[in-house]
Amino acid sequence: MGSYGTASSQSPKILFRQLFEKESSTYTYLLADVSHPDKPAVLIDPVDKTVDRDLSVVKELGLKLTYAMNTHVHADHVTGSGLIKSKVPEVKSVISKASGAKADVLIEHGDKIYFGDLFLETRATPGHTSGCVTYVTGDGPDQPQPKMAYTGDALLIRGCGRTDFQSGNSEQLYKSVHSQIFSLPKDTYIYPAHDYKGFTVSTVGEEMLYNLRLTKDEDTFKGIMASKYCSYPVEIKMFKFLLYKV
Amino acid sequence: MGSYGTASSQSPKILFRQLFEKESSTYTYLLADVSHPDKPAVLIDPVDKTVDRDLSVVKELGLKLTYAMNTHVHADHVTGSGLIKSKVPEVKSVISKASGAKADVLIEHGDKIYFGDLFLETRATPGHTSGCVTYVTGDGPDQPQPKMAYTGDALLIRGCGRTDFQSGNSEQLYKSVHSQIFSLPKDTYIYPAHDYKGFTVSTVGEEMLYNLRLTKDEDTFKGIMASKYCSYPVEIKMFKFLLYKV
Repeated sequence: MGSYGTASSQSPKILFRQLFEKESSTYTYLLADVSHPDKPAVLIDPVDKTVDRDLSVVKELGLKLTYAMNTHVHADHVTGSGLIKSKVPEVKSVISKASGAKADVLIEHGDKIYFGDLFLETRATPGHTSGCVTYVTGDGPDQPQPKMAYTGDALLIRGCGRTDFQSGNSEQLYKSVHSQIFSLPKDTYIYPAHDYKGFTVSTVGEEMLYNLRLTKDEDTFKGIMASKYCSYPVEIKMFKFLLYKV
Repeated sequence: MGSYGTASSQSPKILFRQLFEKESSTYTYLLADVSHPDKPAVLIDPVDKTVDRDLSVVKELGLKLTYAMNTHVHADHVTGSGLIKSKVPEVKSVISKASGAKADVLIEHGDKIYFGDLFLETRATPGHTSGCVTYVTGDGPDQPQPKMAYTGDALLIRGCGRTDFQSGNSEQLYKSVHSQIFSLPKDTYIYPAHDYKGFTVSTVGEEMLYNLRLTKDEDTFKGIMASKYCSYPVEIKMFKFLLYKV
């Protein structure tokens, strides 16, 4: 069988699957290097409730899961990394050092995570939380083309994550998106951690033209973000608990 | 900007977007030939509730919508074709002749629908309803590779549509899937009309190995389908109305 899935970018090596958790509208991404004999794979932003589904797909596709990577921890974003590790002990959890959370691998801006010959590069994109990162596929002849950026909640399709609690900072988010994401090639695919309107993908070029918030000047953006949100999500209560569950 | 979206298959011509309607768990697909000066596009299985979202994406990406295509009409599947035509009169609605529904273009097995240099070929896949079809991308140097099959409710990821009402027939569905879909190359992507577990794509090869129903022998399959479902979805009441709204 064609063991590589939807390669959204054109690399013969990559398997790519986008998976959705409906209750929290969270996307989890499965990537693997299927040209490598071990078919090493990573999951980006796994959700606790859908760990069994995700591990089942990994098994059916004959992949070897090596990393459970998180773009961030947040109240609406209950990571499945811990549960994955309890079921597949050799998997390493990954999160940014700046998040303050515990994980096997604490990454910083510029760090690379390899799976086979493919890799993801870390870009610090704080603002939604102080520890948010964006994972971007690498440069090189066999790396996916166009690039793919896993933006977490820093940049959503036509929107962005909230900045009103858990060390959120709208000024910082504006700078992060403009300097670290909008500086990528315009055809780079944007794969966010959430979507609430049924979109699955966008591009840097599209968001630079049509994002409802990030296309504004910085002061307007800060005003928009300050006027949004007055209630905390239910899961906020669990945040301290979550911090230690990555 | 890179005006082509997630090309799930490797053709420089195709733009591909998968869009989700959460309430009915319906996928709508947007395909366009972005190498053609007009960027002609088709929507497969548009949903009434998300027509404005879909037309907005079409506009932002600079596409010219030419067809609103339906794999079938069914109680859980409220087409947006009529609404699209009321907003963009030059769009032509498409459905199978066997469905009994009204549309601008009534297609039959083997018929092709062109958008620019790309085309979709119709395969009759009755069983969920007597008018169900699967749209498969074409053969040729510029056509998407691997192929993509838009299976409607005939084949879902790890499952299939119900066969207990609205001219459903489990024996017919079994034959349709095995003769018309499982006969495609194993790396063909399966894009269904619905998914309830957060999957976005599968392949023919995967479903031949892991589909929970269609991997069984015909009698077992018929037994499974006969034992399923005892209540009609709420929308069944609207079916006669829907038949005339394509």
